[in-house]
Amino acid sequence: MNTADLLTITSDDLAITRLGERTVDTPLADLLGEREETWHYVTETDRVLLDVVQGIARKRVVDVAALPAFNPGGPRRKLFFEPSEVTAGIVTCGGLCPGLNNVIRGLVLHLGRAYGVKRVLGIRNGFKGLTDGSEPVVLTEQSVADIQNRGGTILGTSRGNQDPVVGVDTMVRLGVNILFVIGGDGSLRGAQKLADEARGRGERIAVVGIPKTIDNDIPWIDRSFGFQTAFGQASQSIRAAHIEASSTENGVGLVKLMGRHSGFIACYSTLASHDVDFTLIPEVPFDVDVFLSRLKKKVEQQGHAVVVVAEGAGQEHFPASDQTDASGNAKLNDIGGLLKKRIIDSFGDEPLSVRYVDPGYEIRSVPANAFDAVYCTRLAQAATHAGMAGFTSMVVGQWSGRMVHLPIALTTASRNVVDPHGQLWMNVLETTGQPKRMV
Amino acid sequence: MNTADLLTITSDDLAITRLGERTVDTPLADLLGEREETWHYVTETDRVLLDVVQGIARKRVVDVAALPAFNPGGPRRKLFFEPSEVTAGIVTCGGLCPGLNNVIRGLVLHLGRAYGVKRVLGIRNGFKGLTDGSEPVVLTEQSVADIQNRGGTILGTSRGNQDPVVGVDTMVRLGVNILFVIGGDGSLRGAQKLADEARGRGERIAVVGIPKTIDNDIPWIDRSFGFQTAFGQASQSIRAAHIEASSTENGVGLVKLMGRHSGFIACYSTLASHDVDFTLIPEVPFDVDVFLSRLKKKVEQQGHAVVVVAEGAGQEHFPASDQTDASGNAKLNDIGGLLKKRIIDSFGDEPLSVRYVDPGYEIRSVPANAFDAVYCTRLAQAATHAGMAGFTSMVVGQWSGRMVHLPIALTTASRNVVDPHGQLWMNVLETTGQPKRMV
Amino acid sequence: MNTADLLTITSDDLAITRLGERTVDTPLADLLGEREETWHYVTETDRVLLDVVQGIARKRVVDVAALPAFNPGGPRRKLFFEPSEVTAGIVTCGGLCPGLNNVIRGLVLHLGRAYGVKRVLGIRNGFKGLTDGSEPVVLTEQSVADIQNRGGTILGTSRGNQDPVVGVDTMVRLGVNILFVIGGDGSLRGAQKLADEARGRGERIAVVGIPKTIDNDIPWIDRSFGFQTAFGQASQSIRAAHIEASSTENGVGLVKLMGRHSGFIACYSTLASHDVDFTLIPEVPFDVDVFLSRLKKKVEQQGHAVVVVAEGAGQEHFPASDQTDASGNAKLNDIGGLLKKRIIDSFGDEPLSVRYVDPGYEIRSVPANAFDAVYCTRLAQAATHAGMAGFTSMVVGQWSGRMVHLPIALTTASRNVVDPHGQLWMNVLETTGQPKRMV
Amino acid sequence: MNTADLLTITSDDLAITRLGERTVDTPLADLLGEREETWHYVTETDRVLLDVVQGIARKRVVDVAALPAFNPGGPRRKLFFEPSEVTAGIVTCGGLCPGLNNVIRGLVLHLGRAYGVKRVLGIRNGFKGLTDGSEPVVLTEQSVADIQNRGGTILGTSRGNQDPVVGVDTMVRLGVNILFVIGGDGSLRGAQKLADEARGRGERIAVVGIPKTIDNDIPWIDRSFGFQTAFGQASQSIRAAHIEASSTENGVGLVKLMGRHSGFIACYSTLASHDVDFTLIPEVPFDVDVFLSRLKKKVEQQGHAVVVVAEGAGQEHFPASDQTDASGNAKLNDIGGLLKKRIIDSFGDEPLSVRYVDPGYEIRSVPANAFDAVYCTRLAQAATHAGMAGFTSMVVGQWSGRMVHLPIALTTASRNVVDPHGQLWMNVLETTGQPKRMV
Repeated sequence: MNTADLLTITSDDLAITRLGERTVDTPLADLLGEREETWHYVTETDRVLLDVVQGIARKRVVDVAALPAFNPGGPRRKLFFEPSEVTAGIVTCGGLCPGLNNVIRGLVLHLGRAYGVKRVLGIRNGFKGLTDGSEPVVLTEQSVADIQNRGGTILGTSRGNQDPVVGVDTMVRLGVNILFVIGGDGSLRGAQKLADEARGRGERIAVVGIPKTIDNDIPWIDRSFGFQTAFGQASQSIRAAHIEASSTENGVGLVKLMGRHSGFIACYSTLASHDVDFTLIPEVPFDVDVFLSRLKKKVEQQGHAVVVVAEGAGQEHFPASDQTDASGNAKLNDIGGLLKKRIIDSFGDEPLSVRYVDPGYEIRSVPANAFDAVYCTRLAQAATHAGMAGFTSMVVGQWSGRMVHLPIALTTASRNVVDPHGQLWMNVLETTGQPKRMV
Repeated sequence: MNTADLLTITSDDLAITRLGERTVDTPLADLLGEREETWHYVTETDRVLLDVVQGIARKRVVDVAALPAFNPGGPRRKLFFEPSEVTAGIVTCGGLCPGLNNVIRGLVLHLGRAYGVKRVLGIRNGFKGLTDGSEPVVLTEQSVADIQNRGGTILGTSRGNQDPVVGVDTMVRLGVNILFVIGGDGSLRGAQKLADEARGRGERIAVVGIPKTIDNDIPWIDRSFGFQTAFGQASQSIRAAHIEASSTENGVGLVKLMGRHSGFIACYSTLASHDVDFTLIPEVPFDVDVFLSRLKKKVEQQGHAVVVVAEGAGQEHFPASDQTDASGNAKLNDIGGLLKKRIIDSFGDEPLSVRYVDPGYEIRSVPANAFDAVYCTRLAQAATHAGMAGFTSMVVGQWSGRMVHLPIALTTASRNVVDPHGQLWMNVLETTGQPKRMV
Repeated sequence: MNTADLLTITSDDLAITRLGERTVDTPLADLLGEREETWHYVTETDRVLLDVVQGIARKRVVDVAALPAFNPGGPRRKLFFEPSEVTAGIVTCGGLCPGLNNVIRGLVLHLGRAYGVKRVLGIRNGFKGLTDGSEPVVLTEQSVADIQNRGGTILGTSRGNQDPVVGVDTMVRLGVNILFVIGGDGSLRGAQKLADEARGRGERIAVVGIPKTIDNDIPWIDRSFGFQTAFGQASQSIRAAHIEASSTENGVGLVKLMGRHSGFIACYSTLASHDVDFTLIPEVPFDVDVFLSRLKKKVEQQGHAVVVVAEGAGQEHFPASDQTDASGNAKLNDIGGLLKKRIIDSFGDEPLSVRYVDPGYEIRSVPANAFDAVYCTRLAQAATHAGMAGFTSMVVGQWSGRMVHLPIALTTASRNVVDPHGQLWMNVLETTGQPKRMV
Repeated sequence: MNTADLLTITSDDLAITRLGERTVDTPLADLLGEREETWHYVTETDRVLLDVVQGIARKRVVDVAALPAFNPGGPRRKLFFEPSEVTAGIVTCGGLCPGLNNVIRGLVLHLGRAYGVKRVLGIRNGFKGLTDGSEPVVLTEQSVADIQNRGGTILGTSRGNQDPVVGVDTMVRLGVNILFVIGGDGSLRGAQKLADEARGRGERIAVVGIPKTIDNDIPWIDRSFGFQTAFGQASQSIRAAHIEASSTENGVGLVKLMGRHSGFIACYSTLASHDVDFTLIPEVPFDVDVFLSRLKKKVEQQGHAVVVVAEGAGQEHFPASDQTDASGNAKLNDIGGLLKKRIIDSFGDEPLSVRYVDPGYEIRSVPANAFDAVYCTRLAQAATHAGMAGFTSMVVGQWSGRMVHLPIALTTASRNVVDPHGQLWMNVLETTGQPKRMV
C-alpha cells in the first residue's frame, strides 16, 4: 500500500474487541506435557508496532508507548471459553482461493488436538447456510484428512450476505460459540454484522475472520493466503503465452489475470516468469494508443512480445456503468477482449498471431503450495487461539512477520494496492523494460 | 533467531563499505524513458531499522537516530562505476540450492537491460575458476534464456576457498570491476578476503554477495532464496513417507532432511504436510529412549507414525570428532541411520515397517518455484544496484520486507536458528502434538 | 478407428518408397563397439502385419504372405547415404504440440551420436523458412541440451504450405540430403510434394515425416506423440471445472477441449478424471435440448455437473460455412459458447453458476511428460534410421507396439476417430453414466 | 519378453475358468438407457490372438482357429451373478504402486453405477485382513471420492499369503461373491489358492485379479498399471543426479532404481531423460572393471557422467545367499552401494564427486498420472465385467491394445524381462552410447 497511509492510522483504529474477562486456564500446557513453562504465551503487554520503518525511521525521538501497535496473535494462558463447552462453526464465503481447505483442516485439527474442542460444524454454501435452514456438516479429524490436497472448499460457498438476525438465531440453535469466517472484504463486513447482532443480544459468540483475497488486496497484512499459489499458477499461463508467442512470427501473447483493484498477481507473476514485456495494472493508467505503438516496436525488435493485463486495468477506457455482481462488486469491462481487438486492428495486414490466455478458474481452484499450506496452518492456529480467548469482530493476519489481530473495520476500510512509486513496481519496470509512463 | 540477539547489534555492525564517491549519473532514468522523476531512487538518508518489534516496543522513549539501521537496497541516482566500462563477474560456490540459475539470469539481464553493461563473465566451478587458469564463459541475454527452468548452476561450483592474491590477479587480468559471489558463509568469507585484497592493492573492484543457504541459517535476513522451494520439495518426501507408513501395519516413516545447524526445513515442511508426529531439530536436544517410548505409544494409538529428523539433530548422541569436509564444515554423524536402527531394535519382535527416506540431492537440485523465482530476481536487481554504486564487502538481503545491504562480517558472525521459545517451534509442537521436552 | 476400415487396406497401400539401393555399411556397429552382432538389425523380410485381431481372428485359414503388412522401422545394416556426407534438415510445421523439442533433440543427438552426421540444420518458422530466404540455424548437441524441458518449438512454426520448387531449390543450396518434417496431415502433404519435386529432378533427397497431431487423429498409428501429455494437462482443466462446480450451488463446469474431428482428448481426459458427467465429441451427434434436459436432471440429483465438449462437436447445430484457416482447415463454430448460452437460458431464474474453462494454448505449450519424452526419442531414432536407409515420402509411427514405416499417402487419406461402437467410447459411457443416445 | 517365448504357449495355457452358466440378463443396457443395442457386448466367439507379429508373419499359411487366443475382456449380455445379490470384496497386497486407489475407486464406482451392486467391502491390510478377524471397511461412492489423488492404498497392505481355508471361511461369513485381488505374482498365487479352495467347497465365489507390479515384470500384458507413473517419477531422480553431476568437476550421478528381475524402469527412465551415460539392468551382465574403465573415460571426455542401475543388476558380483523377504522374494545384494564404493576407489586421488540417489519409496507412493488413471479405470471396468460374468482364477490385462482375460497360472509362470536383443534395449544403447558389451 502507499506508505503514506501508514501515518493515518491511530491506536484507536487498532483496538480489538473482546467478549469479556478471560478466566479459564488454557489446556495447552497439559496437552504439551508440562505446566510450568510459559515461554510461548502471549502476554498482555506484548505489542507489534504498526509502523516499523517509514514513520519511525525519519523521526528523531519517539514516545513508543504512544505509537499505534497491533494486538499480537498467539496462545493466551487464560481463555474466555471453557474448551469442553465450545461448539465451533466454520463458514467459507465468496470466490474460491487456494488454501481454503487447508484453513478448514487447520481449524479442525487445532481446535481438537490443542484445545480438546469436541464439536466443529461446517456451515454449507457460505452465509446462505446460516439462513436457509440447511443442516451443517460435522467436521472431524477423519473427515478433513487429505482435504488439503484438493482445491476449492469442501463446505461450498456463495456470494452475498444474509440477514444477521436469522444468522444469529441459527448459531444459537446450533450452540455455536465461535464462528470462523473465511472470506473477503464483503464477507468480513457480514461477519461484523453477525458479531454486532450477537453482542447486541448478549450472546457469548465470538466471530473471528481469516481474510481471504486471491488479489492480495486486503490491507495491513503482509500477504493473503493463497496468493503465492495463485501467482505461481499464473506464471504457468504466462509461460504458455510466451511459448506460443515465441514459436510463431510476430507472436503476441496476451494474458488476462485476476486483479480487480490491485495488480499484485500481474506484478508477481511477471517477476516470476521474466518473459513479460508489458504489465498493465489498475493502479497505473495507460493510453491504449501509446501502448500499441510500444508493443509494435517491441514485436519488430524481438519478433514477439508478451503482455500481462490485470482484469481491472484500463477501466477508464470504457463508459461508466452501475452494474454489480452478487457480491456487490462493480462489474468489470472486458479489457482483455478490448486489447485483443485493438492489437489485431493495429497490425492491419502485417503478419500477427495473437494468443489470448484467460486462465481464471484454473488459478483459483488449485491446491495450496507448500508455503501457503504452512501459512494457512498458522492462520488457523492463530484464529483458534483468538477465538478461545474471546476476541471478536476481528481477523488474524501477519504483519512484519508476526501474527497479529486486526479489527474487521480496519481491514475493510481501504485496499492494499501496488504503489506506483514503490519497490515492487520498480522491479516490474526493470524486468519488463516497459516505459514508466504510457500516457 | 533468538530475539535477544537483536539487542546485541550496534550501528557499527551495520555499517557498509563503499569504494569511493559516487559521481556517475545513473542511466536508469534514460532507460525507463524519463529523466526527472525520482520516486524510486534510494536517498542517502533512508534507513531500515534493525529492531522493529522487540526492543523498541518495550521501551518508552527512544532516540531513533541512534537506533541501529540497515543501509537500504535499491537504485541510486549517482553511481560509482561508469556502466559502459564495467565488466561484471559471477561466481557460484558451495552446494546446490534452488534458484542459482535465476540469480545468474537476473544479474545478466539487469546489468544489460537496466544499466547497459556490455560484458558479463561467468567464472567456472566456484572460486577454483579464479585461480586454476580456466577461461570464464561469456554470459549473454541469449545464453541465459530459459536457464531458470533448470536446477543447479550453469557455471558449475566447488567447495572451499582459494588464494585471494591469485583471485584478484585473475580479476585484474579479466578486467572484472564487480564480482558477484553467490555462496554460503564460508564462501562469503572468501569473498571478503578477495574484497580486502583488492582494496589493499587499490583496485577499483566491488565484491557483492548474494547469500545462499538452503538451510536458511544465514542471520539478519528474512529468508534465504531457494528455501521455500526446498521445504516444498521436502514436504513431498514427507508425503511419500506418510503414504508408505499409513499403508502398512505399524508403519514408521522416517525422513532425514537437510539442516546442519538449523531445523528450518524440518519445521516448515512439517507445517506444510500436517502429517508429521515428531520433528527433531539441532536446536532442541532429545533423549533417544524418551523419543522411542513416545514413538511406540503413538504407533500403538494411531497405527503408524511419521518422524522428521534434521541431519544435524541429535549429534550429542555420537562421540566427538574433528573431521571436516572440503568447505571446512564438521562432518555430521548419521542420525538417520542411528534412529532407524534404534527404532527397529525397540520394536523387537512386534510387527514394524520402517520406511526410511533420505531425499538429499533431490531437494537441492530442483528449479526454483515461483516465489523464489521472484525473490532471486529482486536479489539480483538489488545486487546490481549495489555493485554499480560501488558498495563492496557486503551482501544484499531482505529485512522486514525491505531490500537492505548487510556487511559480510555480520552475516558470517552468527547463524539463524529456530528459537525453541519462539512462534515457529510452538506451531510445530501444536501441529505434531509431540511433547515440548523429550529429555 | 472403425475396425471395418482395416479390411479396406491392401498391400499396395502399405508399400514404401526408397531412393535407391542401399550399399553403404552402417557405422552403428562400430559405434556400439562391435561388428559381428546383428541382432538388432531389421532384415529385408521382416513384416508387421496390419490386421492383427479382427480380420484374421475371424477367418479359418489365411495365406499370411498375402496379408497387408508394414515395412518395419529400425536400423539397417546397409545404408543409402554415406553418413559423413549427410546434411540433415529439420522443420516443424503447424500448431504447437508437446514433444516437438524432444523430437528435434532426439534427431540431432541420434544423427550425431549413432551415425556421425556432422551437419544438422534447423529450418525456421515451418515451410516458410524453405522459401523466404531466411537462414537456417545450425543445431548441435550443445544447442539442443535441455530444450526438451521447454514447450513449443525452438525452430518456430507456421501454417500452410509453400512452393515445392523453391523449397527443393533451397534444400539443394543448403546441401540438405534428408529433410525431417514434423507436422500434421496438411504439412505431410506438403512434405510429399517436396519429395515428389526432388525425385522428379533426380535429387538424392529423402523426406521423412514424424506425424504430429495433438488430436491423435492421424490413422494407422497406435497414438501420436504429445497426446498423453495433452490429455493429462486437459484433465487438470477438468479438475478445475469440477472443483469450481462442486463448490457452488447448482454449479455447472463446462470445459472446451481440442478435437476438431476426433474426440480422443475429450474421451481420455474424461477417463483420467472420473468426474465428468457428459462428454460430447464430434463422432457422436447429440440434440441440444435432450442434452439440456439430462444436464438439468443431473444437477438436480447431484447438486452440480461437469460437461466436457470437444471443439468439433455439435457442428451440425450451426449454419454451414465455407471459411477456412491458414492451414486450410474449416473454421469451427463456437460450440462452447453456444452451450454456455443455452445452459444459462435453460435454467431461467433458478440458481446456476456456469464455470466455463477453455484451456487451449495451455495444453499445447507444455513440455512432454516422461512417456511422450520416451516416445519422441524412439520416433526420432526410427526416423533417423529410415532417412539414412534412403526411405522417402514416408512417416514413422508405432503399430501394435512396433515401430513401422507408413507411406505419407496412407496417413493423409483418412482420419483416426473414436469408434462410437468401440471399447473406448463404451468406457466413457460407463464412466460418465450419460445415455448412449442423446438424439 | 523374448519373442521366442511366444511360440511356447498353447491354447490350453490361455483357457479361462468360469464358475458356471451365465443366465442373468445384464442391467447395463437399462442403465445406459436402451435395451436393443448390442454393439459393445463381447460375443462368445470373439478372440484376441496371442501372436500377432512374429509367429504368424513368418509363416505362409495358417489355420487361424488353431492359433492360441485370449478370451476378450468387456461386458457380456448374460451374467453369472444376479447383481443385486452381489457382495464384492477388494484386497490390495504387497508393495505400493501408483494407481492402487484408482483401481479401488474404479471398482467401487463401476460395480455401483453400471451394475447396481449395493455392497462393496474393503479388506484391510492385504490377505491378513481375511484371516486375522479384522472387520472390513464398507466402500461407497462417497468414501472413495478423491482417493485417486492420494498415493498408496486406503485399504492398507501386507506381504505374504495366508491360509486359504480361513480366507474362504471369512468370505463366506461376509457373503463375498466376488473377490478382487490387486497384487503381484506372489499374491496372485494366493488368489489362485483362494479360488481353488472356494471351488473345492462348491462356493459360488469368483476371484478376479488385477496384476500389480511396479517393475512391469508380469508377462503377457502390454504393461502394468503404475509403470508409466513410476518411470516418470524415476526420471525426476535422474534429472536430480544429472544436475548435481554436471554442476561439479568430475561429478558422477549414480541412481539406483527399482527392478528386481527386470530393468524396465531403468530403461524407460533412461530414454525419458536422455541424460544417462550407462544403464545397468539385471538382464545384461557386466564386468565391474570394464564398466569402471568406461565410466572413467566418459568422465574425462564429458566432465561428468550419469549411471542408472536397477536394484537387481549385477547380483552375480555377490556371494550366493538364501535369504528371502516376507513375500518370499530373494533378498537382493546392494549393487548401488557396491558401485558407489568401487567408483570412489577407482578414482583414487583424482577429484571426484559421487552423487548417489536412491528414490525408492518416493517412486512407489505418488498418485497415478493421467495415463495410468485411465488405464486403472479401464482395468477396473474389465475386472468388474469379468467378475459379474462368473470368470474366476484369472486376471484382466491389456494385450495388443485390447482388454483380455488371462489365467492366473499363465501370469505367474514366467516373467516379463527386457530382451537384450530387442528394440527397447537397442534404443537404450543408442541413447546412452554405452557399449553393447561390458564383459
